Amino acid sequence: MNKILDDILEECRQYTQQGEVASYIPELAKADRNELGIYVCTNVGDLYAGDWDRKFTIQSIVKPVFLMLAAIDNGIAYIKEHVGVEATGKPFNAIDYAEPLLLKEHINPMVNIGAIAVCDLIKADNDEHRLHRLLEFTKSITGNPDIEIDMDVYNSEKETGNKNRALAYLLKNSGMIKGSVDSLLDVYFAMCSVKMNCQDLARIGQLLANRGFDVHSKTQVIPKEDAVFLNAVLTTSGMYDGSGEFATTVGIPAKSGVGGGIMANCPHKMGIGIYSPALDTKGNSVAGIKMLEKLSKKWELSIF
Amino acid sequence: MNKILDDILEECRQYTQQGEVASYIPELAKADRNELGIYVCTNVGDLYAGDWDRKFTIQSIVKPVFLMLAAIDNGIAYIKEHVGVEATGKPFNAIDYAEPLLLKEHINPMVNIGAIAVCDLIKADNDEHRLHRLLEFTKSITGNPDIEIDMDVYNSEKETGNKNRALAYLLKNSGMIKGSVDSLLDVYFAMCSVKMNCQDLARIGQLLANRGFDVHSKTQVIPKEDAVFLNAVLTTSGMYDGSGEFATTVGIPAKSGVGGGIMANCPHKMGIGIYSPALDTKGNSVAGIKMLEKLSKKWELSIF
Amino acid sequence: MNKILDDILEECRQYTQQGEVASYIPELAKADRNELGIYVCTNVGDLYAGDWDRKFTIQSIVKPVFLMLAAIDNGIAYIKEHVGVEATGKPFNAIDYAEPLLLKEHINPMVNIGAIAVCDLIKADNDEHRLHRLLEFTKSITGNPDIEIDMDVYNSEKETGNKNRALAYLLKNSGMIKGSVDSLLDVYFAMCSVKMNCQDLARIGQLLANRGFDVHSKTQVIPKEDAVFLNAVLTTSGMYDGSGEFATTVGIPAKSGVGGGIMANCPHKMGIGIYSPALDTKGNSVAGIKMLEKLSKKWELSIF
Amino acid sequence: MNKILDDILEECRQYTQQGEVASYIPELAKADRNELGIYVCTNVGDLYAGDWDRKFTIQSIVKPVFLMLAAIDNGIAYIKEHVGVEATGKPFNAIDYAEPLLLKEHINPMVNIGAIAVCDLIKADNDEHRLHRLLEFTKSITGNPDIEIDMDVYNSEKETGNKNRALAYLLKNSGMIKGSVDSLLDVYFAMCSVKMNCQDLARIGQLLANRGFDVHSKTQVIPKEDAVFLNAVLTTSGMYDGSGEFATTVGIPAKSGVGGGIMANCPHKMGIGIYSPALDTKGNSVAGIKMLEKLSKKWELSIF
Repeated sequence: MNKILDDILEECRQYTQQGEVASYIPELAKADRNELGIYVCTNVGDLYAGDWDRKFTIQSIVKPVFLMLAAIDNGIAYIKEHVGVEATGKPFNAIDYAEPLLLKEHINPMVNIGAIAVCDLIKADNDEHRLHRLLEFTKSITGNPDIEIDMDVYNSEKETGNKNRALAYLLKNSGMIKGSVDSLLDVYFAMCSVKMNCQDLARIGQLLANRGFDVHSKTQVIPKEDAVFLNAVLTTSGMYDGSGEFATTVGIPAKSGVGGGIMANCPHKMGIGIYSPALDTKGNSVAGIKMLEKLSKKWELSIF
Repeated sequence: MNKILDDILEECRQYTQQGEVASYIPELAKADRNELGIYVCTNVGDLYAGDWDRKFTIQSIVKPVFLMLAAIDNGIAYIKEHVGVEATGKPFNAIDYAEPLLLKEHINPMVNIGAIAVCDLIKADNDEHRLHRLLEFTKSITGNPDIEIDMDVYNSEKETGNKNRALAYLLKNSGMIKGSVDSLLDVYFAMCSVKMNCQDLARIGQLLANRGFDVHSKTQVIPKEDAVFLNAVLTTSGMYDGSGEFATTVGIPAKSGVGGGIMANCPHKMGIGIYSPALDTKGNSVAGIKMLEKLSKKWELSIF
Repeated sequence: MNKILDDILEECRQYTQQGEVASYIPELAKADRNELGIYVCTNVGDLYAGDWDRKFTIQSIVKPVFLMLAAIDNGIAYIKEHVGVEATGKPFNAIDYAEPLLLKEHINPMVNIGAIAVCDLIKADNDEHRLHRLLEFTKSITGNPDIEIDMDVYNSEKETGNKNRALAYLLKNSGMIKGSVDSLLDVYFAMCSVKMNCQDLARIGQLLANRGFDVHSKTQVIPKEDAVFLNAVLTTSGMYDGSGEFATTVGIPAKSGVGGGIMANCPHKMGIGIYSPALDTKGNSVAGIKMLEKLSKKWELSIF
Repeated sequence: MNKILDDILEECRQYTQQGEVASYIPELAKADRNELGIYVCTNVGDLYAGDWDRKFTIQSIVKPVFLMLAAIDNGIAYIKEHVGVEATGKPFNAIDYAEPLLLKEHINPMVNIGAIAVCDLIKADNDEHRLHRLLEFTKSITGNPDIEIDMDVYNSEKETGNKNRALAYLLKNSGMIKGSVDSLLDVYFAMCSVKMNCQDLARIGQLLANRGFDVHSKTQVIPKEDAVFLNAVLTTSGMYDGSGEFATTVGIPAKSGVGGGIMANCPHKMGIGIYSPALDTKGNSVAGIKMLEKLSKKWELSIF
């Protein structure tokens, strides 16, 4: 089966030359578009190929992490009172909605404004504590105690993050951020700057595939219903404005980040981590999606 | 197991008093909100409860029927050149896009404008022939040779269908309707007015669950890849602007219609037909969704 | 003073090479971009230069004609109950507003959807009669009994007018068109295809400048309050999405058409007709606006 | 003529009971809806009635002040490179436009986001200096050396101004704010909190009516072309989403603020200041507009 991953990786290498590496901050632009890696965690052993151990920042792949911890802290019902789960939202159209309940209809935990709102729902004494909890939680779901933040990326995100500041103040205006916008955004930027490799992503995917049960530590790390909820949200909204297309061509829950990573999982079967930094116009890794398409077809992974 | 459906139906009877029966045409307003039915086709036998044999018009549940036949006729790749599959579209924002390729990004086969565009892709000598083919195809996927059109509803739809005319002329303006808008809309209105009962819907669902293979006639009625494609589209967009929420609470591919029906399926397992005419604000059957929620929980149907 | 117009015309001749002649129907594409004309009706005599006697179709300049006759028929208050006068409207966003009162907020008599709605308010036994009344009215406000329709343009407009059909069915859906969409659009397309030269446009402008009093026939052709109302609407919305910019650079009420004409007036002073068919991206005559800018500066015409 | 103002004021007193006093900050909610004042500066003397000497915060009436000073500093052409002048803009739709040139099309100096952008164009060593210049300029155009800031309102605006912070960070994201968002917003909030009475507003109006020439000091305080430019912008966009309607019923350049003030002028004739704090749904003083309607009709002020 390692042969299968190797073959798929070589077949898809050509796609690493399509799309563009993210360049809105200099650190991301340094990524090497020729790198390509995949890691698969099945319940009977791991498979991998290529540059699976290259570390990169997870960026938007932190959004399901926020949602998992916020759901554990508050329960799904409480989360749903604060953020919507439709893919139709256009949050800034809602600028004139002073009422949180109206704004809620327009935000989704897999887009920036919704993810910031969800981050605020994570319980903590203060934002420093919030970041600490998030890092510990990230270590537990990846099974990797060495998870850390890329400080260069973090500082760049913080410096250039004015669009996210605009979104956060829109939330603040609707009473959806309780404390300081600045320190909450520090948590957000720091967590976007967490470094992982394909194995780390695959481990998160495996946890979701097993509906929250960690086969390595033999513990239920997140409640089953939270894992199922998250997989539903990932399927309808996890791949930006390409989520519908991805459902038709790959057909498994996944989340991408502009750092070039994709965290995916096939329920009951496996977790998958992908890395290839050149992105399509929607922000998803070009070669990464191609590898998942071929893998889905080869192994009949589609949940549909 | 019949006991299970009976119990669920009784538990959900209270919800028939919530929401409103569709009233935009007088015929739909005549529906009895107290009626409630469910039919389940598993590969080892059928289960049913309540008013499962009440006939009602399928309305938007015709959208997957259009998509299946158009995909069989043209292949999925050709379909995707003409309509998008994202849930984000706001088609009328695209009024100034003269180019079909730009409009495409904003339409989806599960909303009216996209369904009309898909209907035009079905191969036919003329619109009379198109309707004939659609009716024959509907008979084949339901296994019911007695499928027919409710002429009163059809005439009402035709009389009051000015919003759909607006949408169709927008398509015509972009070159996405080849022939006459009027006669194509006749096909559209006629097919929305097809009458089915819960068994008919469950049979369509069963066909999708079995990835196009009809266990009754032992034939592959639609290609496997078309069935999978359709289930992906249903999951991300089948329940109007409630699709994301439905994915998190029920978690199976489904399509609802304002006539009160829901056609759902659990891949590899079963097809489900529901009837209860009172609708929530998004146009989905209130009690119908509640029954699916309970059934999904009871039988662990969620694909996530 | 004729010298002034000649000089301005020559200074602006270079701008006839900018922009593009409208090409959505073949007849409009036949226009000669080198033609450039201007006609000014002051209360003490006329001035003109260039191709002022070239005939062209008035296109959107018919919108103020509709509004004048509808206001005479119904009074301004009644008109305002049906169409809004803000420049902010995005009518197709309002597709889900079934209620006319909600749609009203989003339409404006100087954009297509609003103009169609206003045309429906003109009193007539039937649409043939409506067209007859409009032609007679047009003859009276231009003082030109030879006004006629360009049948080639009319037939082309009718053939390609699917976007306007979409808009009209949206109105019909909201109960804002009482009779047949098709025959109302025939009136609309016919009136867009009325031929005028710069003198005809200048005469309409002069009538508005004199607040409805025709200095030639010594009669009050339209009520003073209707002329003032129309000039207000022209100033805020007459030049498509370039109305705000035009107010700052020229500063007088005006209406342009994609046939290359501009009808303008300086209250109490003069009416102006312009012809130059190459258009900017907003649909306004490039050289036409330039001539008005120079004239406004030279004669200090700005009303601000 | 004083009798005329008294009569109009009494006729319109009933309208003070319609609409609502602004309440988004406690200080504004303290306004007495029964107060009603008007002040008119003609070039041959002043007229006034009612509570004309009541002081209130100018709020959005600061927007033309920003625009005047920015135009003096940079010239109109430079201003137009940064902000648009159409009333059609929906700035937050433009969140994904990273390029300032694209965002520009969607902002207008008479709405918050455009006014903040214009404020940034005012030349200054730092924001403290910017505020100082603005206060000195405000004193010069009102002829009132005692102009000052209401510190309670300023502090409240600052505390609750998260929507404006969202808008400002959107500008910052596009490179349209050069320095600190926080200190620029301090200037913005402080200037919104400047207190004036009806006489102060009428003096600004008179300056615009006389195209920048101050008849009191016999000096050209602002360039003629800047005054004309501003009056054009006020006419198309000065009364929020009620600008088109105001043009048809009153027909003179004006700017309103949620503090209840209206600054208006009739070119070549007079400046007008109004105070009445109860607002319509668009944010304009109800009784204030009614007084201007009656005055416009009585004195035939409409520029159209």
